[in-house]
Amino acid sequence: MMGMEKMEKKIPLQTVERMSLYRRILEELHGKGVANVYSHQLAEMVHVSPAQLRRDLASFGSFGNISRGYPVYQMIVTISRLFGTDTLQNVALVGVGNLGRALLFYRGFEERGFHIAVVFDIDSEKVGRVFAGRRCHHIQDLEAVLPDYSITMAILACGQQNLQSMVNRLGQAGVRSVLNFVPKQVHGPAGVNVENVDFAARLEKLSFLNRFGSAR
Amino acid sequence: MMGMEKMEKKIPLQTVERMSLYRRILEELHGKGVANVYSHQLAEMVHVSPAQLRRDLASFGSFGNISRGYPVYQMIVTISRLFGTDTLQNVALVGVGNLGRALLFYRGFEERGFHIAVVFDIDSEKVGRVFAGRRCHHIQDLEAVLPDYSITMAILACGQQNLQSMVNRLGQAGVRSVLNFVPKQVHGPAGVNVENVDFAARLEKLSFLNRFGSAR
Repeated sequence: MMGMEKMEKKIPLQTVERMSLYRRILEELHGKGVANVYSHQLAEMVHVSPAQLRRDLASFGSFGNISRGYPVYQMIVTISRLFGTDTLQNVALVGVGNLGRALLFYRGFEERGFHIAVVFDIDSEKVGRVFAGRRCHHIQDLEAVLPDYSITMAILACGQQNLQSMVNRLGQAGVRSVLNFVPKQVHGPAGVNVENVDFAARLEKLSFLNRFGSAR
Repeated sequence: MMGMEKMEKKIPLQTVERMSLYRRILEELHGKGVANVYSHQLAEMVHVSPAQLRRDLASFGSFGNISRGYPVYQMIVTISRLFGTDTLQNVALVGVGNLGRALLFYRGFEERGFHIAVVFDIDSEKVGRVFAGRRCHHIQDLEAVLPDYSITMAILACGQQNLQSMVNRLGQAGVRSVLNFVPKQVHGPAGVNVENVDFAARLEKLSFLNRFGSAR
């Protein structure tokens, strides 16, 4: 398998997104005791073309002799290494309102290698309290607290006020990735990647398909 | 402006997704009293190329003489009509656990034309109770309750068990669009579009960028 340090230029982001899907399906197969899977079977399960699947898998290396199908467990390990989720990563959560609390209990994060290690809020009623085992710190203490947890990723589920300056502060404090659940677009300063999650946009797309497009 | 009934084949899904973004930014501009915006300004605000923006806007019609910039309010109205969100649409929510309750309070839905009108759960402790003004019905009453609310869209925030059969039942009951927040992939039966929301996949992508890619 090729060295991972050389891969960044070879893997398009859409392939990376499909990798998440492949990994999820592979985990399900592994859970059922399946050791090998043929590309056409896996492609059908994830609803992509077999050619697309083979291209995607080829882009991060070879799995040796695959005449008996791709090795399920080895693929899970390889994709996890690629994501850096083969060991649990600490993540900070900013905002423990309704959505923030739901994210604390969201099972998908821990299962996939992400541990919300520390939470922040601006509400003095919440600061000092413990939410699902995590102590809530005041946002003003961000810079002091983050280094204790080796945090490079943050999830935003706070209010809309001063959101961009919050992202800038996180970047200054060593955070390199921000997953933003606040329904307001933010952009990463230099060196910080941001993913904006927009629930309503997904409904808008569905509503559009409902009106003008037919289900595939 | 061309007739909307003829548009579906002309608009790619990626354009539809960017439309959500344009609409959000246009709403912000409208809120600030901006009446017209030049394509290069709007393009910069949404972080796409001016050429891409003009192609996207051209795909759903003409805005007449744009020498003074695009008309902000008219664009909002046109995009909303395109999404079918110019009037409030009723949506069903299945599952009022932590995440379901957070979605009930999520401001982004109502602001963008989606009203969660009815909720369902399987838990007898929740059935009959009122959550944020909506009475919770038992999932077994889905088929009886949905027609009362003219529901064609559903949001899933329930447990993983029997999830696919739930989607199939929703389809039978007239639902044509499903937004799935459960961290388990489901597929739409004939005539039903599904969007699977996967929070962990967004973190995986960020983690990948953290390791191998640089922020743009």
